[in-house]
Amino acid sequence: MSARPTLAVVGATGAVGTVLLDLLSTREDVWGGIRLVASPRSAGRRLRVRGEELEVLALAEDVFAGVDVAMFDVPDEVARRWAPVAAARGAVVVDNSAAFRMNADVPLVVPEVNAWAARTRPRGIIASPNCSTLSMIVAVGALHAEYGVDQLVVATYQAASGAGQAGIDTLHDQLHKVAGDRSLGTHPGDVRRVIGDDLGPFPAPLALNVVPWAGSLRDAGWSSEEMKIREETRKILGLPALRVTATCVRVPVVTTHSLVVHAVFEREIDVEAAREAFRDAPGVVLADDPGRGEFPTPVDVVGTDPTWVGRVRQSLDDPCAVDFFVCGDNLRKGAALNTAQIAELVAAELSSS
Amino acid sequence: MSARPTLAVVGATGAVGTVLLDLLSTREDVWGGIRLVASPRSAGRRLRVRGEELEVLALAEDVFAGVDVAMFDVPDEVARRWAPVAAARGAVVVDNSAAFRMNADVPLVVPEVNAWAARTRPRGIIASPNCSTLSMIVAVGALHAEYGVDQLVVATYQAASGAGQAGIDTLHDQLHKVAGDRSLGTHPGDVRRVIGDDLGPFPAPLALNVVPWAGSLRDAGWSSEEMKIREETRKILGLPALRVTATCVRVPVVTTHSLVVHAVFEREIDVEAAREAFRDAPGVVLADDPGRGEFPTPVDVVGTDPTWVGRVRQSLDDPCAVDFFVCGDNLRKGAALNTAQIAELVAAELSSS
Repeated sequence: MSARPTLAVVGATGAVGTVLLDLLSTREDVWGGIRLVASPRSAGRRLRVRGEELEVLALAEDVFAGVDVAMFDVPDEVARRWAPVAAARGAVVVDNSAAFRMNADVPLVVPEVNAWAARTRPRGIIASPNCSTLSMIVAVGALHAEYGVDQLVVATYQAASGAGQAGIDTLHDQLHKVAGDRSLGTHPGDVRRVIGDDLGPFPAPLALNVVPWAGSLRDAGWSSEEMKIREETRKILGLPALRVTATCVRVPVVTTHSLVVHAVFEREIDVEAAREAFRDAPGVVLADDPGRGEFPTPVDVVGTDPTWVGRVRQSLDDPCAVDFFVCGDNLRKGAALNTAQIAELVAAELSSS
Repeated sequence: MSARPTLAVVGATGAVGTVLLDLLSTREDVWGGIRLVASPRSAGRRLRVRGEELEVLALAEDVFAGVDVAMFDVPDEVARRWAPVAAARGAVVVDNSAAFRMNADVPLVVPEVNAWAARTRPRGIIASPNCSTLSMIVAVGALHAEYGVDQLVVATYQAASGAGQAGIDTLHDQLHKVAGDRSLGTHPGDVRRVIGDDLGPFPAPLALNVVPWAGSLRDAGWSSEEMKIREETRKILGLPALRVTATCVRVPVVTTHSLVVHAVFEREIDVEAAREAFRDAPGVVLADDPGRGEFPTPVDVVGTDPTWVGRVRQSLDDPCAVDFFVCGDNLRKGAALNTAQIAELVAAELSSS
C-alpha cells in the first residue's frame, strides 16, 4: 500500500473521542483521510482535527467503505455490533471497549509491552485494555521484563472521568454544592443531604468522599473493574496464572487514575535497579524524591502521555517485592493514546506491506 | 479508691480535643472532676463538657495535682515533655501522640484487641495508636483472633483532618477556589495555578487530587506514617515479625480514613466465616452488599464510633487471603474515642482497686 491509510474514528464526540482528536492533531500525522463517526444523535456536528473542520457522520455500514483502520471508542454493546461490520468491510478495528478484550482470537495490546501481538488478528480486531489496567501496566511491564512478575496487589484511586463525561459533570456539580459550607464532612450523611439523590453514574457521593466501587457486580463480591485488571494484566503479560488482586476505589479527581502497587517478582529486586528500569522504560517517567516533595499526583499528570511512577520502595519483608505509586491520564494512555498508538502500529504495517 | 477518678484533658482545644469533649458529654460518665488543659495561647477559653462550661487552664505542673487520669492530645514534643510530669504527679497518662508508642515500657492499647496490655504500665503512661493503624486494627484483630494473621498489604485513603484543623481548613479553602470552574483538572498544573502556593500542611494540592504522602521521610523512601502502621500493628498484635507493607495516600475527604486491606492468614479462610467474624466483633460494623450499593464510605461513617468493613472478598489466588475495605473516623476511633476507651479502662481499674 503506497497511499497513507484512511482512518475512521467511531465515537468521536465522547470524552475519549475528544482526546483522540486532540492526539490526531498533535502527534506525527500518519493518516490519509480521516472520517469522524458517532451515534445519529451526534451526527452533523462539526469537529476540528488536524486543523480542519469535519462533519460527524452517523454510524452506518457505508461509513467504513475504503477505511483501513477504524478506532472505536463506544459502549461495549455498540462495539459488539459494529466492530465486526467494520472488519468485514476490510478495516482493521482498534477497539477501546471491553467487548472483545478477553476473546482468544483478539489480541489485547499495549505497544510498550506487547506490540508484537498486534500483528496476529484473525478477526481483524485489536483490543485496547481498560483504563485502570493501562494506568499501571507499562510500569509493571518495565519491571517484569527484567525480574519476572509473580504477584500484584493493587489498590486504585480512580478519577471521575473513568465514568465518562457524566462522571466529570457529576463531580463538578457536587463540588459546587459542597464548597463554601465548612461544616460539611463532620456528621454522618451531611454531605449526602447537600448533594441530594442525583449521584450521576456513581453509587455514592463522590465529592468529599471515596467510593469503593467501579463497574458492575461479578462473582463473589468482585467488581467487573477489579476482574478486568486481573484478567487483562494476565493476557497482556502472557501469564495466565499470574496472581493479581485489585480493589477499585473512585476518588474525587477529574482525570488521571492512580494506583498503589505491591509487586512481587521471581528474583530478588534491588530498589535502585528498579528505579533504573523505570527511568529506562519507554513511556514511563520516574518522579521519586519524596524528601523534596517529588512524587506524581493527578493534578500534575493529567494531560500528559506517560505513566508516572514514584514512591518506589524495597519491601521490608521480602527481597523479591517492591511497592510503588503510579499515575496515568485515564483518557490519554488509559484510553485514547493507547488506541492511537495501536492504530499507528497498524498504519506502519499497512504502509510497509 | 471510692470516689470517681479526676480527669485532665490536655490539648482540649484541638481537633481531637473537641471530639473528646463531645465523647465525654455523651458516653457513660465515669469521671469525677474534669480539668481542661491547653497551651497558654488557648488558656482562658471556656468550653462546654457534660453540660457545664469550664475554663481552659494553661499547661503547667500544678494542673496535674490530684489528677488520676490525664488524656494527652498534643504534638509529640509536648507529650514527650509533659506526660512524664503528669505521671510523676501520680496521674495515669493516656497519650495519643507518637512520643511513647514504640517504647518497650509503654503499652500500646486498642481496647477491643489488647485491653489486657493497659494494666502493665511501668512508666505510668499508656499510648494510643496512630489514626491510620486504629482505622483498621479492630477489623484486622477480629480476623486475627480466629485465623492468625501472617501478612498485611494496605493502601490508605487518609482524610485531611489527619493533619489537624489546619488540614481541614486547607481542604475547605482549596475546594472554595476550585469549585465552579468546570475546566479544571484537565491540563497539567491547572489546579495548582488556581490553588496557589499555600498548600497548608500538605506537600501538594489536595482538592481534585490525591497525594501519596503523609508524615515525614524515614529510611529508604518510607514515610513515618507507613512505618507507624507497620510497627504499631506488630506491637498491638504482639507479632514482632509480622509482614506489613503500607502505602499512605491523602485524599480530599474531611474526616474518616479508609484503607484497602489484603490480609493473608496462617489458615485457610472462608469468606462467609470472615464476614461472620466481622459481624460478631465488638466495635466493627459490616456493610457488605455491593449489589445494593452497600459498602462503607467516609461521608456515611464520619461521626460514628465503629470500624466499618465492606467489600469482603476471598482471594482468587490464595485460600488463606481475603481482601476488604475499611473506614473509620480518624478523630473518633482513630484518636479521641480510643483514648477515651483506654482512660475508661483505667478508671474502672482504679475504681475497683
